[in-house]
Amino acid sequence: MQNIYDNPVFFDGYSRLREKTDNANDLFETPALMGLLPDLAGCAVLDLGCGMGDHCAEYVRRGAAKVVGIDISEKMLAAARERNGGPRIEYLRLPMEQLGALDGPFDVVASSLAIHYVADYAGLAANVFRLLKPGGVFAFSQEHPLTSCFTTGERWTKNEKGEKVFANISNYSVDGERLTEWMVEGVRKYHRTFSTVVNTLVDAGFAVERLVEPVPDAEMRRAYPRHADLVHKPDFLLVRARRPR
Amino acid sequence: MQNIYDNPVFFDGYSRLREKTDNANDLFETPALMGLLPDLAGCAVLDLGCGMGDHCAEYVRRGAAKVVGIDISEKMLAAARERNGGPRIEYLRLPMEQLGALDGPFDVVASSLAIHYVADYAGLAANVFRLLKPGGVFAFSQEHPLTSCFTTGERWTKNEKGEKVFANISNYSVDGERLTEWMVEGVRKYHRTFSTVVNTLVDAGFAVERLVEPVPDAEMRRAYPRHADLVHKPDFLLVRARRPR
Repeated sequence: MQNIYDNPVFFDGYSRLREKTDNANDLFETPALMGLLPDLAGCAVLDLGCGMGDHCAEYVRRGAAKVVGIDISEKMLAAARERNGGPRIEYLRLPMEQLGALDGPFDVVASSLAIHYVADYAGLAANVFRLLKPGGVFAFSQEHPLTSCFTTGERWTKNEKGEKVFANISNYSVDGERLTEWMVEGVRKYHRTFSTVVNTLVDAGFAVERLVEPVPDAEMRRAYPRHADLVHKPDFLLVRARRPR
Repeated sequence: MQNIYDNPVFFDGYSRLREKTDNANDLFETPALMGLLPDLAGCAVLDLGCGMGDHCAEYVRRGAAKVVGIDISEKMLAAARERNGGPRIEYLRLPMEQLGALDGPFDVVASSLAIHYVADYAGLAANVFRLLKPGGVFAFSQEHPLTSCFTTGERWTKNEKGEKVFANISNYSVDGERLTEWMVEGVRKYHRTFSTVVNTLVDAGFAVERLVEPVPDAEMRRAYPRHADLVHKPDFLLVRARRPR
């Protein structure tokens, strides 16, 4: 388990990144994740890797009766309690790897861009399945496999004008750890192929209902040209799976 | 609908390709497809795009009571009847786009590397669902989305030694027609993202049970070094979906 978010350099860099108004999370990832959620009215919701709690607060605004946000980072949870606290939200310091310590049941388990930090995806899927009520929904976003597969070299081939022509893909088929630099060196993430992402959920008992690979439409490409390259290689993959009744 | 297989140049080229003993279909695609099939004993099996009937004959060897192979190409069907005929196999000239003309029910609908030629994948999925018995299996292979997305330029970035370093990926997110040269010019195929492949089956009523992206293991890479690049970019995607009971 790693806790990069309590590294002060990382925390500051991350905080600044998320404050930008045109960041890809706000534009593409979060709307796609919200679009996968069922009606939350009266629901018990668990948020895996809740960070500063923005999503937890949103789940309450959408009518959730109870939201539990877990995160490995004390700094994140302190920010969450300050910015996004409330009587219907409970924040717990708990790594996703220790979900076995948590009791359910929940109607919805959600997670935003956290699961690619977990080595034991099968164990996570089994725990989420156990924590969900029958009929409950597991909705999450993660790095897109075409992004997480990155191993070495340049991510893009550009033309003379500096425009991105090809996403450089290598070792897509090799599941496992990837060390990258993101604010700090040595950030450890886990690449998984599409088949691993889907089959692991099926093996845990889930019905896979939806995959989403958000990309900007023509209007969004004009408004945010720096995100136009998502047409070649998406940043995010979102999944909705259901524990059968 | 296109019928490239009745083009004599294409047919001859294709025939020679499939006769090579180290072709990727025989090494990776066909074993993966067979691995997705249920026990065929006593089953009625439909093969979409049956070509020369090798798979139909294999389904009979695996115990199928009845096999129907459909294909758009008269040349392919003539070869199939000659090489792989038999009392339990019926070959029909029927494009996959006209599955509505066929009556079921079947226990299994299989298809090997044909579905990426069909524009209306949703229509195909709906027809297959209708033709299957409850509990029946739809198992197919298609070009891998990282292969079918190809639009322009070179497929690979190579180093000074000529080794493949990166698969050059563009327009992965853009579903739709791709014109390629394969034996003949202007072969029309359809690229679909993973989310389209999966969601279309879910929308048709299927439970998606398995995705397979076959790649050579270390032993296969040593035996067939020219296929080692599949580690970077698979050629094939296989899917097993089930009509719920």
